[in-house]
Amino acid sequence: MLAIGAGRAAVTVDVLVEGRHFRRDWSSAQQVGAKAAAATLADVAAMGAAPVALVVGFGAPASLPVSWAVDCAAGIEAEAARAGAHVVGGDVTASDAVLIAVTGIGDLQGRGAVLRSGAQVGDRVAICGRLGWSAAGLELLRRGLTGPTELVDDHRQPQPPYEAGVRAAFARATAMIDISDGLVADARHIAQASNVRIDLSWSALLAHVADGAELLRDAASLLAAQPTATHHQPEVVVRDWVRDWVREWVLHGGEDHGLLACFSEAIPAGFTVIGSVGPPIQGAGVWVDEQPAQQAGGHEHYRSS
Amino acid sequence: MLAIGAGRAAVTVDVLVEGRHFRRDWSSAQQVGAKAAAATLADVAAMGAAPVALVVGFGAPASLPVSWAVDCAAGIEAEAARAGAHVVGGDVTASDAVLIAVTGIGDLQGRGAVLRSGAQVGDRVAICGRLGWSAAGLELLRRGLTGPTELVDDHRQPQPPYEAGVRAAFARATAMIDISDGLVADARHIAQASNVRIDLSWSALLAHVADGAELLRDAASLLAAQPTATHHQPEVVVRDWVRDWVREWVLHGGEDHGLLACFSEAIPAGFTVIGSVGPPIQGAGVWVDEQPAQQAGGHEHYRSS
Repeated sequence: MLAIGAGRAAVTVDVLVEGRHFRRDWSSAQQVGAKAAAATLADVAAMGAAPVALVVGFGAPASLPVSWAVDCAAGIEAEAARAGAHVVGGDVTASDAVLIAVTGIGDLQGRGAVLRSGAQVGDRVAICGRLGWSAAGLELLRRGLTGPTELVDDHRQPQPPYEAGVRAAFARATAMIDISDGLVADARHIAQASNVRIDLSWSALLAHVADGAELLRDAASLLAAQPTATHHQPEVVVRDWVRDWVREWVLHGGEDHGLLACFSEAIPAGFTVIGSVGPPIQGAGVWVDEQPAQQAGGHEHYRSS
Repeated sequence: MLAIGAGRAAVTVDVLVEGRHFRRDWSSAQQVGAKAAAATLADVAAMGAAPVALVVGFGAPASLPVSWAVDCAAGIEAEAARAGAHVVGGDVTASDAVLIAVTGIGDLQGRGAVLRSGAQVGDRVAICGRLGWSAAGLELLRRGLTGPTELVDDHRQPQPPYEAGVRAAFARATAMIDISDGLVADARHIAQASNVRIDLSWSALLAHVADGAELLRDAASLLAAQPTATHHQPEVVVRDWVRDWVREWVLHGGEDHGLLACFSEAIPAGFTVIGSVGPPIQGAGVWVDEQPAQQAGGHEHYRSS
């Protein structure tokens, strides 16, 4: 957060590297550009700022087709426009792997930035946006599947609810974060920065995921039906797998860039209450249905699959 | 350039990649960080803005010592402080080569940004800061030499005259750029953006370089004295080499990040007049002593050395 004359700005940066954050054979250049922009724009929105501008550092080997770079830039510009922002500058350099560093600047419109550190005991915890879609889409791509297309497309190009950031700021959100690492991991960032416990309710989460839960179950069933996965497994095990996969994606899937926020006053439109803020128990942390939340990949079935 | 509430900001980004922009065996981590920050901060200053904030995207392989990253961050922070700015955010990611993407934000203090496109026929062209030092230092390092230390240190960690940017803006500079690619190349950026001819005077340039010219000649003499360079060369050829090297560094050496500006009114303190703006001849371009400026490395002696 910084002051520019009488204005207040929120600034953030996100770096994507080929092979680590995206694959050119899985996503189009336009999708990669849009995803790079989305990661930064969602972070700006999560501070309660209205995205205004992006500056883009782009690195590529000489072998990269010019059309790829042009399409990537178009994807960045289109996603910026979706959030109400524009690309205002950039730098291009040579590098072995394609790299995209997107800096975002948001207008706080005179407000203070919403930080991770402001959650108070008694607040309600609410979420806006998709959960688990991107992680499910990634798993499908890894297994060579390209559907359900809603999930795969969401992994290629997430749809963060940018406008909900300013709405949450107006509703005096005490803390906010965009979900890039996964719900539990990002809730833990708030819990630790605020020194509180965040209690989540699985049934409230499933109600929020709503129709998406069916898509996630479809994806898990497809994965379970793959020859390598179902080899000699009885049906009851497969059913457990599907349940665990959905739970894993919802609790630990990243990159959907939904907004997780804490409120002491009324919950703004578009947010669903999924938990509450309590005093720390055995340190600041995240609990689900009164159990300490497990780490990502903590399910034995899931790991062995 | 963008508006943040009532404020106006200048924003720019610069990406450095290991092996292309720096070598860890030639520069300390602190120097690499300072240089990455300097490139961006000088660009902010060249828009006539007061540097306010940096955000840093940092990529590194798992094998990079943590101390290197910590020292690099300290170098960025120290250089930001030298320019009156602070590091306000960042992102860290895994990458095969060390990469540093520095975004800079400057406060235009209500003024418009000084662009490359505003030079007018009749303007005087002036410079502030070192010329050729960094290029000479790089050539010395390439040949295994570590002195004159002033030049080698300048390559490792340039010293841009940040405060001169706002001074030039107050003096109503019509166009400005920081010299990152080389004097002629960056003057050409202004000439083309403004559709003018920029005439430079070699004697005025040498007067500006002043005591630095002696350092540059010392460096060239050291290079000429290397066994591979002087093998079977008569003294008169060596003298030509030294002269051509100095000319090459001053006209084409980049990364010193001095400020080149055009003025239609009084020249501000710290700037030396080195030329003038005229109408285009055979297109927009740069001339030196009434001859079209050659490209970098255009000297036969230099290239064959």
